[in-house]
Amino acid sequence: MKSKLLITCLLLTGAATATFAQEPVDTAMIRKIRQEGLNNSKVMETAFYLTDVSGPRLAGSPGLKRAQNWAVSQLTKWGLVNAKNEPWGKFGKGWEVQKNYAAITVPYYHALIAIPKAWTPGTNGAIKSEVILIKADTITDLDKYKGKLQGKVVIFDTKNTLKPGFEADAERYADSSLNKMAAEKPQARRTPNANNMQNPRMVAALKARALRNAINAFLKDENVGLILSMARGTDGTVFTTNGASYADTAKVVALELETSGEDYLRIVRLLKAGQKVEIEADIKTEFFTADLQGYNVVAEIPGTDKKLKEQVVMLGGHLDSWHAATGATDNAAGSAVMMEAVRILKAVGFKPKRTIRIALWSSEEQGLHGSRNYVLNHFGDPKTMQLKPEQGKVSAYYNLDNGTGKIRGIYLQGDSAAGPVFSAWLAPFKDLGANTLTISNTGGTDHLAFDAVGIPGFQFIQDPLEYGTRTHHTNQDTYDRLIEDDLKQAATIVASFVYHTAQRKDMIPRKEQPKPQGTN
Amino acid sequence: MKSKLLITCLLLTGAATATFAQEPVDTAMIRKIRQEGLNNSKVMETAFYLTDVSGPRLAGSPGLKRAQNWAVSQLTKWGLVNAKNEPWGKFGKGWEVQKNYAAITVPYYHALIAIPKAWTPGTNGAIKSEVILIKADTITDLDKYKGKLQGKVVIFDTKNTLKPGFEADAERYADSSLNKMAAEKPQARRTPNANNMQNPRMVAALKARALRNAINAFLKDENVGLILSMARGTDGTVFTTNGASYADTAKVVALELETSGEDYLRIVRLLKAGQKVEIEADIKTEFFTADLQGYNVVAEIPGTDKKLKEQVVMLGGHLDSWHAATGATDNAAGSAVMMEAVRILKAVGFKPKRTIRIALWSSEEQGLHGSRNYVLNHFGDPKTMQLKPEQGKVSAYYNLDNGTGKIRGIYLQGDSAAGPVFSAWLAPFKDLGANTLTISNTGGTDHLAFDAVGIPGFQFIQDPLEYGTRTHHTNQDTYDRLIEDDLKQAATIVASFVYHTAQRKDMIPRKEQPKPQGTN
Repeated sequence: MKSKLLITCLLLTGAATATFAQEPVDTAMIRKIRQEGLNNSKVMETAFYLTDVSGPRLAGSPGLKRAQNWAVSQLTKWGLVNAKNEPWGKFGKGWEVQKNYAAITVPYYHALIAIPKAWTPGTNGAIKSEVILIKADTITDLDKYKGKLQGKVVIFDTKNTLKPGFEADAERYADSSLNKMAAEKPQARRTPNANNMQNPRMVAALKARALRNAINAFLKDENVGLILSMARGTDGTVFTTNGASYADTAKVVALELETSGEDYLRIVRLLKAGQKVEIEADIKTEFFTADLQGYNVVAEIPGTDKKLKEQVVMLGGHLDSWHAATGATDNAAGSAVMMEAVRILKAVGFKPKRTIRIALWSSEEQGLHGSRNYVLNHFGDPKTMQLKPEQGKVSAYYNLDNGTGKIRGIYLQGDSAAGPVFSAWLAPFKDLGANTLTISNTGGTDHLAFDAVGIPGFQFIQDPLEYGTRTHHTNQDTYDRLIEDDLKQAATIVASFVYHTAQRKDMIPRKEQPKPQGTN
Repeated sequence: MKSKLLITCLLLTGAATATFAQEPVDTAMIRKIRQEGLNNSKVMETAFYLTDVSGPRLAGSPGLKRAQNWAVSQLTKWGLVNAKNEPWGKFGKGWEVQKNYAAITVPYYHALIAIPKAWTPGTNGAIKSEVILIKADTITDLDKYKGKLQGKVVIFDTKNTLKPGFEADAERYADSSLNKMAAEKPQARRTPNANNMQNPRMVAALKARALRNAINAFLKDENVGLILSMARGTDGTVFTTNGASYADTAKVVALELETSGEDYLRIVRLLKAGQKVEIEADIKTEFFTADLQGYNVVAEIPGTDKKLKEQVVMLGGHLDSWHAATGATDNAAGSAVMMEAVRILKAVGFKPKRTIRIALWSSEEQGLHGSRNYVLNHFGDPKTMQLKPEQGKVSAYYNLDNGTGKIRGIYLQGDSAAGPVFSAWLAPFKDLGANTLTISNTGGTDHLAFDAVGIPGFQFIQDPLEYGTRTHHTNQDTYDRLIEDDLKQAATIVASFVYHTAQRKDMIPRKEQPKPQGTN
């Protein structure tokens, strides 16, 4: 597979053969990093404090604050400097669940697996009510419910069903998948989705969303007690989302419980068959408005080279999570690996030429707010491409946010000139399963904030494991999902990448800079 | 695959070629049965009433009583006669969950997925307590906890971990698996496990069980508030068991919550790291002692042949379930299929020569009590092999209790002479995937009660699907697990088997009769 890969790289990078051959690799330091990262790892202990001890880390919540404070303190203990919670601007309200109980009591007792949607209110004490089935294809279909829903629990008719699990939840990338990635062609930088309205599925989804929003507004006006909506997931796994805006000016919405498919469908079937269903619930949620700021954790290993110390290598991942579990794979894993990478570099006594800066973002789940605002505050505005001087001093940003899976390579994000560099840096980790370069972009996480202002931002390729099927955004994203060997491997490789980026003669080569939005 | 199968049958049955060739099959009736079973099915409606409408059907519970009453009424509506709840003897106390809430409140709030063990008491109102970690390898290790556990929540240290799901939950039998079953050699009738004490794993398990029982007795004496034990299962799926005897004379035990692996391990990790954990819980369970009898649902399609109507074909499955879900695959599926089979036979206007009797057993989950006592009451005592005349009049008993999977064939349970008969009866259903005969025994369910007194008792081979991995005995065994096409197929094949057994010139050939226990 390696030879194929090299051929791919050469094809992609054109006349890069010489560069490739010359890219220096510090094998003595890699030995030390491997020794520390694979044999003296603290990554599981770090992950434990970020998950089990801190709890759910929804943006603005006390859980996130606990994790941020612990991280600042721990990074300082490891010898990093300037460790702090750096405000990035106004986020909005914090929110957490303080009681979560719901059960059907008629036709018999059964406790539900159901999670309040983020930023929804509580029941204001225990409630008990029959459940009303709402059938509405248009907003006018709601007329028949007018005046009848005060204090009631409502549920929506659905055609959804659950499927048996004929496919495994967890997988590692097969060689064939990695080869396919390696053979990808360069893609255009993503622009805002102008063409989405041509996509019939997107149009249908937007229409359904608009109807649902209108229904929810109607239900709020009717003073319903509780809305049940069907969660994605099965077997007790519930994927969670937000149910309201976190803006401090946002209107109060009705309480909405994301209900496990099994519990939801049972209630719908009973109601459709004319059976009465009653529910009791006691939900308490709390909003936090004393501090509407968002914060990122930032800390540094200062550079020591007189000329190069003004330049920066950044690494990070988002620390915030959803609220129904402890966000182990999304993204305590990435945060713990990045913290472990800097710990390794401190432990091996590394004094970098360039400054190393770790950042643990917040509000990634609401739209990469932590990283985007950090970039805006420090490097420039991607809309206007008005850049600050610091934009020119960041060699690269490395991100990790695809779960607990070990590193299999790196997305070049279109930066073909970085290919030979990374190829040389990955080579010593072939035995750990990491040797794929793909020119392609990956999205959905914080490296995009850097890429948007022309700073090389990279996300590693990670084995998917159960990320899409069971863990990310679910009530099952707990410490138990973390795979120790994978996290150790990832931290070791990231440490080596950061080391080499800090010591490299030049900064990581950049691709063509983005244009101001609207000038394309 | 078929030709291989025939060869196997011939080998197994010796000089059975002639019998095989002559076994009559009524293709006209099979056409009618298929039409009714595959195109006019009511099996999902039946399953809905047994699961969603009746609720959990633990032995002795109101949920089981609801299902039994509904089944008696429905069988009568379909034109069966003598439908009744037939008492089989003393079972013990009924029990059901009436409130089920538990959450950690320190170090932060998180509601647990945890199920009371069957026949355990409640908390007698809401409780709140710190959690104490119990480390005990021997009973004397408990001394250090004496006098310290009053009202406390306790949890046990464990080395258990959870694993990622690299294998699919659901599978159908591959041809290779079916071929292997078809090639099995005859096995001896199972005797009580005399050799188990030679088995080191069994010895270790018994020792662990004895320690755990001693610990629980200690904890009860210490008046603990609540015991948390780690459930099998992951991703929100909890396998449930009983936590106390259902005997009306049984001593009260401490409340024990079978806690999802994720929630359990989080608490253990926190406590082991010296973090304080507090729990609030409100568990209400109710015992039912007004009627300690067990009941089976029994109903008949009376035979019409002057000589043969005294003879009986029986079919059945157990109707009772565990308590945390609605026992859809264990065993509403088998019950609904057997009910559907007799509905089909009534719907096609069949007037059987022999009497057809359906039985839906109870207390199967506690040791096949319903079927064993039925057999004892009607047919004889397997211990002494003192038989009643009716034992000689039952041609065969067909059972279904391996989940929602369609029928792939039948276990001959050592009755080689039945092989050619069933081979001929399966042949018209090859297109539906059912064409495997295996001489081998299968266990764990109610056909064993018949086999034990020498009545041919058979369980069909069924595709496993998610039975062992997700559904049986779990909080996820709900209607959603049922696969409509599989249940239709099974009912159609069972109806045909029952039809042919009712009309056959002779009764199903029997294997050698069992000897009285202890005379082997």
